[in-house]
Amino acid sequence: MLTREENELICRTGPGTPMGQLFRRFWMPALLMSDLPEPDCEPVRLKVLGENLVAFRDTNGKVGVLERQCPHRLADMWFGRNENAGLACAYHGWKFDVAGDCMEMPTETAESNYKHKVKMRAYPAREFGGVIWVYMGPQDLTPELPQLEWARVPDDHRVVRSWLQDSNYLQATEGEIDSAHVTFNHRWFKQEFVPAVQRGQANRVTGNGGIMNYMDGAPRLTVKETDYGFVYGSRRQVGENEYYWRVTQFLLPFYSLIPGPQPPRGGRCWVPVDDEHNMVFQYSAHPDRPLTEEERQRLSASPERLYRTTFTLPDSTIIDTWRPERQRGNDYLIDRQMQRTQNYTGIASVREQDMAMTDGMGAIPERWREHLGTTDVAIITARKILLRHARDLQEGKEPYAARHGDAYRVRPVDIVSNEGDFGKLYERHADLALARV
Amino acid sequence: MLTREENELICRTGPGTPMGQLFRRFWMPALLMSDLPEPDCEPVRLKVLGENLVAFRDTNGKVGVLERQCPHRLADMWFGRNENAGLACAYHGWKFDVAGDCMEMPTETAESNYKHKVKMRAYPAREFGGVIWVYMGPQDLTPELPQLEWARVPDDHRVVRSWLQDSNYLQATEGEIDSAHVTFNHRWFKQEFVPAVQRGQANRVTGNGGIMNYMDGAPRLTVKETDYGFVYGSRRQVGENEYYWRVTQFLLPFYSLIPGPQPPRGGRCWVPVDDEHNMVFQYSAHPDRPLTEEERQRLSASPERLYRTTFTLPDSTIIDTWRPERQRGNDYLIDRQMQRTQNYTGIASVREQDMAMTDGMGAIPERWREHLGTTDVAIITARKILLRHARDLQEGKEPYAARHGDAYRVRPVDIVSNEGDFGKLYERHADLALARV
Amino acid sequence: MLTREENELICRTGPGTPMGQLFRRFWMPALLMSDLPEPDCEPVRLKVLGENLVAFRDTNGKVGVLERQCPHRLADMWFGRNENAGLACAYHGWKFDVAGDCMEMPTETAESNYKHKVKMRAYPAREFGGVIWVYMGPQDLTPELPQLEWARVPDDHRVVRSWLQDSNYLQATEGEIDSAHVTFNHRWFKQEFVPAVQRGQANRVTGNGGIMNYMDGAPRLTVKETDYGFVYGSRRQVGENEYYWRVTQFLLPFYSLIPGPQPPRGGRCWVPVDDEHNMVFQYSAHPDRPLTEEERQRLSASPERLYRTTFTLPDSTIIDTWRPERQRGNDYLIDRQMQRTQNYTGIASVREQDMAMTDGMGAIPERWREHLGTTDVAIITARKILLRHARDLQEGKEPYAARHGDAYRVRPVDIVSNEGDFGKLYERHADLALARV
Repeated sequence: MLTREENELICRTGPGTPMGQLFRRFWMPALLMSDLPEPDCEPVRLKVLGENLVAFRDTNGKVGVLERQCPHRLADMWFGRNENAGLACAYHGWKFDVAGDCMEMPTETAESNYKHKVKMRAYPAREFGGVIWVYMGPQDLTPELPQLEWARVPDDHRVVRSWLQDSNYLQATEGEIDSAHVTFNHRWFKQEFVPAVQRGQANRVTGNGGIMNYMDGAPRLTVKETDYGFVYGSRRQVGENEYYWRVTQFLLPFYSLIPGPQPPRGGRCWVPVDDEHNMVFQYSAHPDRPLTEEERQRLSASPERLYRTTFTLPDSTIIDTWRPERQRGNDYLIDRQMQRTQNYTGIASVREQDMAMTDGMGAIPERWREHLGTTDVAIITARKILLRHARDLQEGKEPYAARHGDAYRVRPVDIVSNEGDFGKLYERHADLALARV
Repeated sequence: MLTREENELICRTGPGTPMGQLFRRFWMPALLMSDLPEPDCEPVRLKVLGENLVAFRDTNGKVGVLERQCPHRLADMWFGRNENAGLACAYHGWKFDVAGDCMEMPTETAESNYKHKVKMRAYPAREFGGVIWVYMGPQDLTPELPQLEWARVPDDHRVVRSWLQDSNYLQATEGEIDSAHVTFNHRWFKQEFVPAVQRGQANRVTGNGGIMNYMDGAPRLTVKETDYGFVYGSRRQVGENEYYWRVTQFLLPFYSLIPGPQPPRGGRCWVPVDDEHNMVFQYSAHPDRPLTEEERQRLSASPERLYRTTFTLPDSTIIDTWRPERQRGNDYLIDRQMQRTQNYTGIASVREQDMAMTDGMGAIPERWREHLGTTDVAIITARKILLRHARDLQEGKEPYAARHGDAYRVRPVDIVSNEGDFGKLYERHADLALARV
Repeated sequence: MLTREENELICRTGPGTPMGQLFRRFWMPALLMSDLPEPDCEPVRLKVLGENLVAFRDTNGKVGVLERQCPHRLADMWFGRNENAGLACAYHGWKFDVAGDCMEMPTETAESNYKHKVKMRAYPAREFGGVIWVYMGPQDLTPELPQLEWARVPDDHRVVRSWLQDSNYLQATEGEIDSAHVTFNHRWFKQEFVPAVQRGQANRVTGNGGIMNYMDGAPRLTVKETDYGFVYGSRRQVGENEYYWRVTQFLLPFYSLIPGPQPPRGGRCWVPVDDEHNMVFQYSAHPDRPLTEEERQRLSASPERLYRTTFTLPDSTIIDTWRPERQRGNDYLIDRQMQRTQNYTGIASVREQDMAMTDGMGAIPERWREHLGTTDVAIITARKILLRHARDLQEGKEPYAARHGDAYRVRPVDIVSNEGDFGKLYERHADLALARV
């Protein structure tokens, strides 16, 4: 649990909040590159950390991320004209480039110097790993891009998707470093699994660690803090002196890397939109080769269907985003008959199973009412690390990971081993999977 | 009228409010028994007195009413698995029985004692009269079920329906102890009524006291406080020395009993969902025999059509409920031509006529702007009694009616009499209809 | 820009606010006469300056504007019966005339004097120029109707339309005294315009000043304060020593008059509904003759399509109003291909081009973040005048224009002239177009 005060501190990321300031020290995924598919295409409305923004790709292919309202008289720049290397407000033609500099101010006379005095708030943007990243912090502290493996591979090695979820970023993030829930929330009652589990000969049948996750619902977690956040090992007993280990990272401020039996592997991050919504980015990549069409389809199967839409946030801001067809308002299309006979939740797809849990806590959960257990160690650690970094920053201590992109060059792994101690396991396999990649 | 302060005091029933504490001393209708039709059926989301709850019927047929969020990490228990005599959270399998005790905590090791330390808030539930009742007060003060006649009869003697209304409970309750409005709000311009009324020979043509209600729009009300709340007589002059009396009860905290020419008879109660919505329970029963099919249909005709739906409350909570097809958002399908020629409101059904009036005051009416008249005596009394009981409870005085279920064994009556004094009428007919039943 | 405090002061018009008090000194358009088409027709729900009202046309054709809730028990008078020269509440039959006097109180005995003690808040209404006007200020200060030319002409000389917009009244009003935006926001890329503009021989092709507006995006504005508000000249250079002048009025508290090449001419006003919505009234009239059918259609072409609907305001009030089919929720049906090739915005109709800009600022813009330019002189002046009048009124100084309807007898004009000085132009053409009409 957290106190009410801690919960406020960790959930609020708007301008001026301590956690918002911490997040503003990092590059953050803001859009898919494909959301701005070509030069001079339609701008996109977005909100990040409670700030209303508009993104556009200019004539030269450069991406700009500007504040949403024109600095002149606050018209919505999204209605603007994206042409000739800038975005012109549709009200009076004031035109800005990707850096926020005013290119044209045609309501002033040719001699006027005014356009050099008006600058739009513009946030630096980068394209990397299929994603448009934005940096919303102080210019002199511009961080390094996190050198995550999925982002570093060639484009055809990767699938990235994004969608809007109906909760604060934190419980969504927490769901990903919670090894135990896989045993329940994502369980399928497939007949063919049963004999193998009974024989203690579980094979890895599906992604997400396969059915060995079903063999022990009380995994033992060991957390090891690192320069990027932490790595933890989740140990399940799957035979006598035989352990199924899942080794998962939490990378500041909101990334996960999820182990699987073989590549492609992936994870997710949860970028705060406002305090009651987050934008998920889901990435999967093969480190060594292009994805096959079958892999591409499989990696795009959960959430089941995404659709492009406008969405009106509680403060009446309209954004352009992706939504999963199964969502809070339709109870994720839960099927109680399926829940009785086929899987634990009655919800057909893994991501939506997660969403039902994390959205269902309410937009901002009342964490002071929780009763955490032994499998919540990683969640507890993530909260501590986030709060500590936010407080440290208030005292002038900058976050290490923001300035060290190479710290993110790690890889998750799952493995069956007779080693029961995470420290030793970690050392033993450092060469294989946990090393910098 | 009430002062602003009194209005706040009487309308707010959330946790910690004085009126909320009073209501928490009583059993309250929460659902229809048929909303949980069989063992291990789908759970139901509800809100009572501002508290988010989930109800389920377990494998043994017992009903549980639990807080909505799992005590572990606050996932929504409605997504849970209802099986093997308990409701298991779909996130980590923590399973609770109808008493809120933790049956399984599979994320902890077998030796762990933690499951005995975590208890879910569970409210006692009872099934009685077709209704699932809940008690949300202190355990050592558990009240008696109100022994209302409609609830005591065999199931085939009774019809109960429920639906969600768009207002605070109070104005809905007030509408039922307001004899005068029947003359106007529920008036039909049927040609066949006119001669009888003109001759002073009104017969009782329909329910709701029939057309004698149309003969005198300024009934004289006499209120008599009782142990269960009050009874009042509403006297209309229908001939020389001839009075049409309607004798109606208000029973704490929110029940009405409505007289009619002959059984089946009924009434309603209004259970606060939050401060801006209430759940109506409408009951009708014959004391002596099963209802005929024709009676059953007639008693289910108003509101005209109810449908099962999810509803999102202002705080974003989703509940499962019944809604009338005619509702605030569609102006109760008012028909102005009907209003000119057929009835007083242009709304086809009695209940929706009431709803248009009470919802139309706004969720919480500004009662300090009212101008009450002589026919509002019963309403004034109900407010006084509610406020007095709430204040008494703050000073430690428990409400009598909560602990004396037999106090509710009363029956409404309407009668034509030459007796003009309510006190004498009440005595004279005590043996017939006003007696304990 | 305005400070936060000034912005609050100028935008808030609810009861008790300084700006609300100023507005309450003027007659204000509330409905179209055609919204209440005949005696005893259906009442209409409206909100003006944050006050919930109901309007009806009684049996004698007189219009009443009453508070929305019955003074008895606050039922919604809109459900009432409009008959026999009054509106009767559908709850208990209390009936009120257009003056708010209680005609019948049938729940009281015949001898009762109570009905003479209960009065409904009723605002004086007038019919003038196709519009129903309401006055919501102190009775002893009843103003004169503004003698606007479009309102004074015979009915067949005029088109008036109204619709609900999603913003505070102020930015909508400002858009109309912003000559510069016409060059951009309303620009069409018609091939036939180009040669004429290039030759410096622009003719007036359409309304709104025609294509000479396209020839100079930095018009020079000169403002002259007047008894009704101000008039300003907007001067565009269209040839050597040749100026295209647009002379436009801002009339207190919210009227515009827009020049055009020849009559019919018109303008708009923006009446606050609440602080986040306004009701536009758009008027066009020929001073000298009935409109042709072609003119009538042209003057009703923007907004493109209006539909009659109910609308739920943020406080849950339901009003009856007109809405443009192109609206904020559907991005005014913007067409990016049209924006690339046909006009500046991709929005097909002039009014919706304006709405996209003013609604898009957010309901109440953060004017302290503006960067105003030289073409914003009229806007700056309007703000100053409104704020000054509001402050003056707080000190007891009544607004002159409210009591002098003839001050509104002015006419806008556009003209090509070699006169470069607005003061001289104004004098020279006083006899023609700027004179009292």
